[in-house]
Amino acid sequence: MKYCFGVDVGGTTVKLGLFQTDGMLLDKWEIPTRKELEEDVILLDIAQAIEKKMQEKGFAKENIKGIGIGVPAAVRDGSFVKKVANLGWENKNVGKELEELTGYPVRVENDANVAALGEMWKGGGAGYNNLIMVTLGTGVGGGIILNGSILSGTNGGAGEIGHMLANRNETESCGCGKKGCLEQYASATGIVRIAKSKLNENEKQTLLDVNKLSAKDVFDAVKVGDEVAIEIAEEFGRYLGYALADIGAVLDPEIFVIGGGVSKAGDILFTYIQKYYDERTFFTCKDVKFSLATLGNDAGIYGAAKMVM
Amino acid sequence: MKYCFGVDVGGTTVKLGLFQTDGMLLDKWEIPTRKELEEDVILLDIAQAIEKKMQEKGFAKENIKGIGIGVPAAVRDGSFVKKVANLGWENKNVGKELEELTGYPVRVENDANVAALGEMWKGGGAGYNNLIMVTLGTGVGGGIILNGSILSGTNGGAGEIGHMLANRNETESCGCGKKGCLEQYASATGIVRIAKSKLNENEKQTLLDVNKLSAKDVFDAVKVGDEVAIEIAEEFGRYLGYALADIGAVLDPEIFVIGGGVSKAGDILFTYIQKYYDERTFFTCKDVKFSLATLGNDAGIYGAAKMVM
Repeated sequence: MKYCFGVDVGGTTVKLGLFQTDGMLLDKWEIPTRKELEEDVILLDIAQAIEKKMQEKGFAKENIKGIGIGVPAAVRDGSFVKKVANLGWENKNVGKELEELTGYPVRVENDANVAALGEMWKGGGAGYNNLIMVTLGTGVGGGIILNGSILSGTNGGAGEIGHMLANRNETESCGCGKKGCLEQYASATGIVRIAKSKLNENEKQTLLDVNKLSAKDVFDAVKVGDEVAIEIAEEFGRYLGYALADIGAVLDPEIFVIGGGVSKAGDILFTYIQKYYDERTFFTCKDVKFSLATLGNDAGIYGAAKMVM
Repeated sequence: MKYCFGVDVGGTTVKLGLFQTDGMLLDKWEIPTRKELEEDVILLDIAQAIEKKMQEKGFAKENIKGIGIGVPAAVRDGSFVKKVANLGWENKNVGKELEELTGYPVRVENDANVAALGEMWKGGGAGYNNLIMVTLGTGVGGGIILNGSILSGTNGGAGEIGHMLANRNETESCGCGKKGCLEQYASATGIVRIAKSKLNENEKQTLLDVNKLSAKDVFDAVKVGDEVAIEIAEEFGRYLGYALADIGAVLDPEIFVIGGGVSKAGDILFTYIQKYYDERTFFTCKDVKFSLATLGNDAGIYGAAKMVM
């Protein structure tokens, strides 16, 4: 049997998984992302964690096919990272460095793309080869899988669907500095923003409390028929559904897999997303599938491992 | 030396090209698209035209690598066409039929995708591998090349960028039945539509005549500083530039190649397209290139031939 490692580098923890190349997850664990030190030890910590696991399992070096690693940055050529302010990385050849530290082949990709590959392999997109993963968290991320492989883009920037234009008339700025990005309406934060504006302009009775409000509160209220919450969900669905219809016209995928914190609301999301997707979609991709991500925080280690299998 | 044929099937003529596999075009010619007959003879006519050319040149069958063919339809699996009303084709395995008629390997793709491949190979996108071709003609078409290959999409519908949502507030319908598609503003027809509305609401002096108006007239007037024409070009550029920025965020390409009748206006187009692209683009793809298509009506035969090289 051959083995490989899937690594998912986050801002506070690094998740690691040991897989058999037949796809079985044998072990998973975490280490802290040590980024406040003078020297950059993140890759060194990863190399040591892997070495330790090798010893623990008594595996021979020649049985390891490689290490896949997802990082929160644009990645070029499966290895190179221009900048991750959060990790103190700049012009770093992550793949080459980790190869030198471990002696194993390494492939690096953006974490959202890697999660998409994980969901295609073992999650909500299993059985499909052309998949768009939409991560609705603090922001809106995307990962594109075409013919079973990650699309990285020229500068590692493919799948940045959160920064598609959703509203030409927006006056507030997105985190990226532009105005009217999808992320301003379809992220957890965006849903709360829509909700606050609806609550301020609305006289209707509602379960929602403007001072204690999350995306979860909104969809919990939708589930019991709260009218104001439904208005919010409609607006969320319109922005997201229209954007996915645009992606459909451009890429003609088989399936959209919805993940991230907001996806915990469950199937009710599709009531609102698909309604507006169907309203706008071009006929060639009207039969696209929608599903929920199922791997949660493990999508990264699964996708990372899959890259080197 | 080996050879191949590139074929571009249009509604009135079929264009054919004979290429050396080193890329040199040896011969090109046209035959009519005979589609009014009781029997479907289009592929038979193509097979006979190729056979005749083989005899004329005295080439041996074993020196032919294959036939690439672009058709005005969504194409699945490099061969299968669901429907082309215009040609009377329905559930037609174009590739298999032409292989049986000729004895050569055949690859079939959508004509816009094939033209994109042609422009990448020998035209305005030469030297690039990740390219979006934008065809501004009667409609707005698109072709996507990733890592040097055509992206067809699940149902052969990838690259239908003319049907991305450009204006949520549009009241008139697009040819596809939806409202507010990019095609309604950025095609030759769309530019005339914008122009008519501007001329009707405008009191300014202008060279433009609402009763005799083409996209060419508009950009000719822009070139001599006509204020109303510039307003029209700004609106065209805003819709198209914003849409290309969305495509940039999703695909992170190296270059956009602009073709079709409207592209005859020349570099002046970029003044308006890039202005709005830059306003909206996500930082990872801010350095994307723009160029004009250079192969004109030959893009199809070039791209078709390239598919089988």
